[in-house]
Amino acid sequence: MRPFAKRLQDIEPFRVVEVLTRARMLERAGRSIMHLEAGEPDFATADPIIRAGQAALARGATGYSQAAGIPELREAIARWYEEEYGITVNPSRILVTPGASGALLLVAALLVNPGDGVLMADPGYPCNRNFLRLVEGEAQLVPVGAAERYQLLPGIAEKHWQPNTAGVLVASPANPTGESLTRAELSGLQSLTKQRGGFLVVDEIYHGLTYGFQAPSILQLTDEAFVINSFSKYFGMTGWRLGWLVAPEAAVPELEKLAQNLFISMSTMGQYAALAAFEPETRAILDARRDIYAQRRDFLLPHLQRLGFDVPLTPGGALYIYAGIERFSRDSQRFCLDMLEQHGVAITPGADFGRHKANTHVRFAYTTSMEALEEAVSRLERVLG
Amino acid sequence: MRPFAKRLQDIEPFRVVEVLTRARMLERAGRSIMHLEAGEPDFATADPIIRAGQAALARGATGYSQAAGIPELREAIARWYEEEYGITVNPSRILVTPGASGALLLVAALLVNPGDGVLMADPGYPCNRNFLRLVEGEAQLVPVGAAERYQLLPGIAEKHWQPNTAGVLVASPANPTGESLTRAELSGLQSLTKQRGGFLVVDEIYHGLTYGFQAPSILQLTDEAFVINSFSKYFGMTGWRLGWLVAPEAAVPELEKLAQNLFISMSTMGQYAALAAFEPETRAILDARRDIYAQRRDFLLPHLQRLGFDVPLTPGGALYIYAGIERFSRDSQRFCLDMLEQHGVAITPGADFGRHKANTHVRFAYTTSMEALEEAVSRLERVLG
Repeated sequence: MRPFAKRLQDIEPFRVVEVLTRARMLERAGRSIMHLEAGEPDFATADPIIRAGQAALARGATGYSQAAGIPELREAIARWYEEEYGITVNPSRILVTPGASGALLLVAALLVNPGDGVLMADPGYPCNRNFLRLVEGEAQLVPVGAAERYQLLPGIAEKHWQPNTAGVLVASPANPTGESLTRAELSGLQSLTKQRGGFLVVDEIYHGLTYGFQAPSILQLTDEAFVINSFSKYFGMTGWRLGWLVAPEAAVPELEKLAQNLFISMSTMGQYAALAAFEPETRAILDARRDIYAQRRDFLLPHLQRLGFDVPLTPGGALYIYAGIERFSRDSQRFCLDMLEQHGVAITPGADFGRHKANTHVRFAYTTSMEALEEAVSRLERVLG
Repeated sequence: MRPFAKRLQDIEPFRVVEVLTRARMLERAGRSIMHLEAGEPDFATADPIIRAGQAALARGATGYSQAAGIPELREAIARWYEEEYGITVNPSRILVTPGASGALLLVAALLVNPGDGVLMADPGYPCNRNFLRLVEGEAQLVPVGAAERYQLLPGIAEKHWQPNTAGVLVASPANPTGESLTRAELSGLQSLTKQRGGFLVVDEIYHGLTYGFQAPSILQLTDEAFVINSFSKYFGMTGWRLGWLVAPEAAVPELEKLAQNLFISMSTMGQYAALAAFEPETRAILDARRDIYAQRRDFLLPHLQRLGFDVPLTPGGALYIYAGIERFSRDSQRFCLDMLEQHGVAITPGADFGRHKANTHVRFAYTTSMEALEEAVSRLERVLG
């Protein structure tokens, strides 16, 4: 057989998927497994959204819809920015996408020429670098630690800017660390990219999942950045595959052209269902779930610290605790395998999120019940305590 | 603002979308428009599929599912190959994708290095060349006409093979011509690509929509080709965004890696709904719809020929009649605009499908009721008859 394209050599599998697969295999063999690996809310989609989806199906909303999304949903997202952030975003600047994954594909296709580099924090979301690789661009991973709140701060981005750097991609709150960028930091990144003639992409998919504060949106500061968001996390709609992209007005026609060619359309009934995500009844359910995540974080974090995991900062958002394991191991893949195989606790090795200190970090996702978290802690206690 | 990536200059918008948008605008202004432009079945998704989708939502099938698709659906597709074509396809070789669009993205990412060329027929499906452009590959468009049944026959492919040609992409039945490749022709393409060390991709998304015969599948001849298929056309599920890819066994791990990174998952409830597409009750509905398409073709084709459109072959499949307009115009975009604006008949200009004789061809889609087709014919008769 003909060799596969060279890019395949640089694209790594999602290790968390492998952990999940192995965990399910052990469960089928009768083992009890506590699932702290998946970056996915453990609640089914809220009932009002379900009902709206069923109603859309009942009335036959099963055909293609506009490549940029149905107008009603683009308008609902614009109203959400108005209500939540007090900002006016023209619905024409909002493109619905097949998950944040689709938005990342559009942004990579629009902005990155072969050989272009994009600065991003290491650790970070693993797929980002592979979208760049797809279009023959290059992820320029910048090692960040607790001193930088695991974020690509403006001064660090400036220091790492290369001759081929085309722009910056940050996430706030971030996976796997849960850390957000402040308004001043976002502003600094905007100034830097503007001054260097680069682009700024901000992944805001964990907006809404912050505990005791609201993460600022780059859209409060500028219309020139690209924002990636999603119905998956706060809105709890992972399996529907819907996200969105907010772009500068001038980029919209080009993005629509890409979306027509690459996607044709998103799930039509899914978009009608997503309209219900913004209803007060749904928001009350989603906010109650957010409070449950906060309680889980507040339970899990001190226990992990007590057991000797190194978590120097309290993660303010997302669904994760990124923990140093130096006290136990310098091989996080081995450590995760042991925890799963011998103790029935599924967590994700740091290598899924980059290279920087990946061998001495793991990610705990508190996407499971309090009971499961308690059981996980007592299992960890037996082996590490 | 930073210039967009260079590839955007080579990616054209889907003209049919612009025709559709303009047609809807005229309708909102009170005009009566006959829609013969859209490549989409005009029937809502069949009831048993709708009900299965509603049931999946009711039981909370709203989370992520496997990157390669739910096992039940991969197995159902394998059984369909067994029942319809009498062939055994290992379900592990079948990856569910977000529409055939997702399958095209996977194939381009897997097989095409920057600078690689892929041979394809002109006219053909317009997005194909843009998936290649995305990964810095090159569509090598081969002009084909009625003498070649508008297909990239093995001898023609051989003649056009370039030093940088990496493989061949054909569609059978094809959009916009409705022409299929015979078993012998598919076999010839398989031999040619094997001998040249290239890949063979066959787009079979219009399988099931053939009139009076069954189009052969390349899978009846070899396990080495890549097959793209879809739930959109015969199965009538456009707005659900589900397709599939059948790949050689050795390519599956690499494709799964790509799917994990690029899609994470497809619509989960959509996949459970699609299981119902294979039930006898649904198949009876779908086959009855296929017979309706055949009746529409049999009505429209002789009328178009009588009016002076040049359609030398009877299209055996898909949803289209690709018609020469030399008797009326040598500017198909102008012709389509006139037909829409002045006579309320929406059709698609040839330029959507390539460059070869695009100015003297248009595509009629018989994706509207017999009454609308009759009205379209009488409107055309008034101006052209």
